[in-house]
Amino acid sequence: MRQVAVVGVGMTRFGKFPETPVESFGRQAVWEALADAGLSAKDVEVAYLGNLTERRETGHMTCVAQQILRGVGITGIPITRVENACASGSTAFREAWMAVASGFYDIALAVGVEKLNGQGAAPLGRIGDTIEGIAGLAPPGVWAMRAQRHMREYGTTLEQLAMVAVKNRRNAKLNPRAALQSKEITIEDVRNSPLICAPLTLYDSCPTTDGGAAAILCSEEIARKLNVTPIFVAAAALTSGTYERHRDIAANELESRAAKAAFEQAGIGPADLDFAEVHDCFTIAEIVRVENLGLCPPGEGGRWVESGETQLGGRFPINPSGGLLSKGHPVGATGVAQVAELVWQLRGQAGARQIHGAKAALAHCSGGFIGDDTGASAVIILKR
Amino acid sequence: MRQVAVVGVGMTRFGKFPETPVESFGRQAVWEALADAGLSAKDVEVAYLGNLTERRETGHMTCVAQQILRGVGITGIPITRVENACASGSTAFREAWMAVASGFYDIALAVGVEKLNGQGAAPLGRIGDTIEGIAGLAPPGVWAMRAQRHMREYGTTLEQLAMVAVKNRRNAKLNPRAALQSKEITIEDVRNSPLICAPLTLYDSCPTTDGGAAAILCSEEIARKLNVTPIFVAAAALTSGTYERHRDIAANELESRAAKAAFEQAGIGPADLDFAEVHDCFTIAEIVRVENLGLCPPGEGGRWVESGETQLGGRFPINPSGGLLSKGHPVGATGVAQVAELVWQLRGQAGARQIHGAKAALAHCSGGFIGDDTGASAVIILKR
Repeated sequence: MRQVAVVGVGMTRFGKFPETPVESFGRQAVWEALADAGLSAKDVEVAYLGNLTERRETGHMTCVAQQILRGVGITGIPITRVENACASGSTAFREAWMAVASGFYDIALAVGVEKLNGQGAAPLGRIGDTIEGIAGLAPPGVWAMRAQRHMREYGTTLEQLAMVAVKNRRNAKLNPRAALQSKEITIEDVRNSPLICAPLTLYDSCPTTDGGAAAILCSEEIARKLNVTPIFVAAAALTSGTYERHRDIAANELESRAAKAAFEQAGIGPADLDFAEVHDCFTIAEIVRVENLGLCPPGEGGRWVESGETQLGGRFPINPSGGLLSKGHPVGATGVAQVAELVWQLRGQAGARQIHGAKAALAHCSGGFIGDDTGASAVIILKR
Repeated sequence: MRQVAVVGVGMTRFGKFPETPVESFGRQAVWEALADAGLSAKDVEVAYLGNLTERRETGHMTCVAQQILRGVGITGIPITRVENACASGSTAFREAWMAVASGFYDIALAVGVEKLNGQGAAPLGRIGDTIEGIAGLAPPGVWAMRAQRHMREYGTTLEQLAMVAVKNRRNAKLNPRAALQSKEITIEDVRNSPLICAPLTLYDSCPTTDGGAAAILCSEEIARKLNVTPIFVAAAALTSGTYERHRDIAANELESRAAKAAFEQAGIGPADLDFAEVHDCFTIAEIVRVENLGLCPPGEGGRWVESGETQLGGRFPINPSGGLLSKGHPVGATGVAQVAELVWQLRGQAGARQIHGAKAALAHCSGGFIGDDTGASAVIILKR
């Protein structure tokens, strides 16, 4: 297995863009990533696209990856769409990494897109004919139960939940690509926003957004010839498993296992990281997941955010980009957008939200959420 | 890149099974493939699933691969769904091959499933809001134009088209897993069946079917320890491109390029093969594609089927399994089912349809079909 570097990243602004076709998100992100790397479309040897919801009914379900990439002149190469629910983008990145790490290809593209607003867009909250879906269980319900359990078990408070939203909105204000960046919010704003599923409110939940992100990966040899600061892939782990630990709905063996695999692959531990992008689809999700990933002790996620350590300027910033909660969550794009944030931060190009001197960071996404269901979890570690 | 062997294959009967959940197709195929290889679920280290149409609306769109495999005890490993339209199954097989050939994993699973009948199944003929779709162009229309052009350019006859259907139905009668195996049909039956899009009739078209297929791939070292005849992957090529050569709607640069890449990888040519499974979604598709793949000279596909050489017992059988036309075409399963047929034939286990002494064979799938669209084409070569 050889060393692989990320040499270019791109990302559209995330937001609600009902009139924009899904191809535009992908193409804009790829153009930016190619320009960032100083490479051209003809240099890309293999490509993977992460996408969840494109369907034939919208005219784009089949070969959506080829349709997007044709528009930027990327054709004639192996192109594959991958889907792992909310981990689709991370999966595309991991496949691209494997393609280069194995020596099969020298330059690979990972791109993620999702269109959740506008005509033909898929309703994400709908579960369909599973028993849980018929009973009304959707992601907010699952996460609300996790929140209730976490509060009961560990004394996590409603204010601590809200602090995650406040922190990530403050970070998003510094990120021109974030969906929600117009104003900061307060704990009271979060608690007073419309109730979705007790105790979770609208501001405890990530918005329904559209967007795209892209990353160019290449061999170390090629990276050294480009006029960029190579950011190396220290680990790209993907695993599957039952999403819940039945004795504790809040903890998650799947995510702990993905993190363990990534740390083993990277040969480092949480103490060697400077920050992380974590899959904060709801405020409680960030709290539970920093625990699952081993970034803080079990049960301490709520107190950790309250301590201020996970803010920008704190000891270990979580979701400096604004996270899913405020940057947005165009599903297939999210994992690749996390990679883009890591690369910008590790290069020192993150502007007003720069984490000074950051040398290594982690990105995490998980997909699949029904109680008796199965899920995918991906953890990527990049280092300067 | 190391040598990879297929050591187990499985396949459900293809057909219309509106009451059977999609998971059943995948699980049955995987169970059979594991038993065939003499391996257990715990031995599988990585898995790829090819599927086109599963959607959240059916309750299964997200992480469908994990949901299927959990039921056979395959969990805790990297599992990824891939989609490349009608080449989805071939793409899953190729990703599994790369995972083992690269040395990342020793034992990989490729599985393909599709449910096209029953509640919640996606309408495959619908194109949606593309210009071609609004104008009414669907796969039968595209292939009808190709047929018209091939007839005009090369003198291909309606009878030659029908001969493809007659041949493949005769083969299917010898395949207990084929969808349409109850009776043979005649040229007159094909011509007299309901007109779909001139000149193509119902029997010129593949049926809308459900089913699943699976293959277990492993390193040569492990294959030598198993009690099976290893069938080696000589090539697994995937490419993308414009689906049409604009100066000739019948020929296809994309497919020729995929075949060329596969032959180069395998280090052999068409003359070294004993038979092929070719993507015969319509009768004209088999005729055009044997030309595109270099199995017969351009324009000679119609005369080749008329010569009898592509029948079972002929010099170079095409679609001994019955092909898409009579075995059926559950989209995501098709590419993996082609691999199963190749393996059974190369092992000498194909029963009444055995091609005696077959040592090497090719399987081909292409996905994407709109005139100004883009496509994927995959060519796999296996050898004893």
